[in-house]
Amino acid sequence: MKEQLSIVKIGGSVIEDAEGLSHLLELFAKLDGRKILVHGGGKKATEIGQKLGIEAKMTNGRRITDAQSLDVAIMVYGGLTNKKIVAQLQAFDCNAIGMSGADGNVIKAHKRPIKEIDFGWVGDVDGVHTENISKLLQADFTPVFCALTHDENGQLFNTNADTIAAEVAIGMSEVFETTLYYCFEKKGVLRSIADDNSVIPHIDSEKYDQLLKEGVIADGMLPKMHNCFQALRNNVKQVCIGDSDMLKKTNSNFTTLTL
Amino acid sequence: MKEQLSIVKIGGSVIEDAEGLSHLLELFAKLDGRKILVHGGGKKATEIGQKLGIEAKMTNGRRITDAQSLDVAIMVYGGLTNKKIVAQLQAFDCNAIGMSGADGNVIKAHKRPIKEIDFGWVGDVDGVHTENISKLLQADFTPVFCALTHDENGQLFNTNADTIAAEVAIGMSEVFETTLYYCFEKKGVLRSIADDNSVIPHIDSEKYDQLLKEGVIADGMLPKMHNCFQALRNNVKQVCIGDSDMLKKTNSNFTTLTL
Repeated sequence: MKEQLSIVKIGGSVIEDAEGLSHLLELFAKLDGRKILVHGGGKKATEIGQKLGIEAKMTNGRRITDAQSLDVAIMVYGGLTNKKIVAQLQAFDCNAIGMSGADGNVIKAHKRPIKEIDFGWVGDVDGVHTENISKLLQADFTPVFCALTHDENGQLFNTNADTIAAEVAIGMSEVFETTLYYCFEKKGVLRSIADDNSVIPHIDSEKYDQLLKEGVIADGMLPKMHNCFQALRNNVKQVCIGDSDMLKKTNSNFTTLTL
Repeated sequence: MKEQLSIVKIGGSVIEDAEGLSHLLELFAKLDGRKILVHGGGKKATEIGQKLGIEAKMTNGRRITDAQSLDVAIMVYGGLTNKKIVAQLQAFDCNAIGMSGADGNVIKAHKRPIKEIDFGWVGDVDGVHTENISKLLQADFTPVFCALTHDENGQLFNTNADTIAAEVAIGMSEVFETTLYYCFEKKGVLRSIADDNSVIPHIDSEKYDQLLKEGVIADGMLPKMHNCFQALRNNVKQVCIGDSDMLKKTNSNFTTLTL
């Protein structure tokens, strides 16, 4: 039987709020078994970028990562956010080790091909180096990933943190029985966006199609749910979506996704 | 017999110059056997700090690390510099993994006690977690340390990179036969600062005392040499001081220090 592995992605306003983040990290530290954390960057990168006089570049409403914005992402995601999360996890007796995709050569990517838009230094993931991540887990480290990848030729990329979490979960499913947790500010996938208590407890492929048709899954949830089902179709056992308290053993008020 | 381990500290203007840094990293990647890189931050932190409107605070000519300056150090040393070095080493087929002292709980420190000066968030090293670093080496990773430590309670510190290199070398000497390389812009310890070719090939304790008396070792070299002999007195086998080419096997034009 495969050993269990939890991959927890945290993002959204959870990262912005110091107290909420600390609560979440404490819950994460207490999770049984092997685990991996993946974090987004929150608004800090935009804030630091603005202070440095680097304007967020947009084309057709999509964010472009030019060389300067990439440096800010490396500083904020890979430095400030990652190291502070690692230091806090250490305080909760979790032996965290902060990583970009370049560290230990764990996530290889290539520059997103230019079609209508040149997204700049954005990386699309080629694959995850399962063996190197496994070595860290076997040595009792808890990897903490920021949303950066590399091309093995010295170039770092900005990569969506949800995608990284899904790719890591998919890659690690070769060796582990994986559960992927998407932790954000809502209690789960909501039937009505206006009602925080309208959590849909379980979504399978059939229900997913139905919710798409009904328009219940829309906007920001679309790519997130796409990532989730992509993960499930690639051997990830289960995906859970909810707020920090989802990580409490006694809580069952969140959304579980299976094929 | 103990396995050999090289600890290479790079700093000074070597870090500033992209071409020089790349040359050095290529030589480092080619070094035989297990190895660890420790890097300083160069002037980039000051530059970014200034752009962010954070003034370098000085008291009696000594630099103070306030909370804002610490954040800049975490961003630049732990983020920008560390991740770019790691990505470059990966391009040279060296499986680098970037670390602060918090990652893997490898370097514990405490806030420097306030005497005449409150240095702010500067950490004095308590010790190195040899076992955790060894696990990474045994798993064929090459740790790349930036000059940050932590207190195991969630607080990160700014710590001198020369000190980190010496402490890591001392700690790892429990398990390995260690050589500590200090790589900077000069060819070694110079008899005459004006003459780049006046490298002193070998310095032992006796010669060290003599050079101190003669005033040959002064200014910035004083704390550096103090670190070196501190390391030698604590079981580090050998310390070498020189420029990047010191890492070439065929080169012998640098300074070697032994007890």
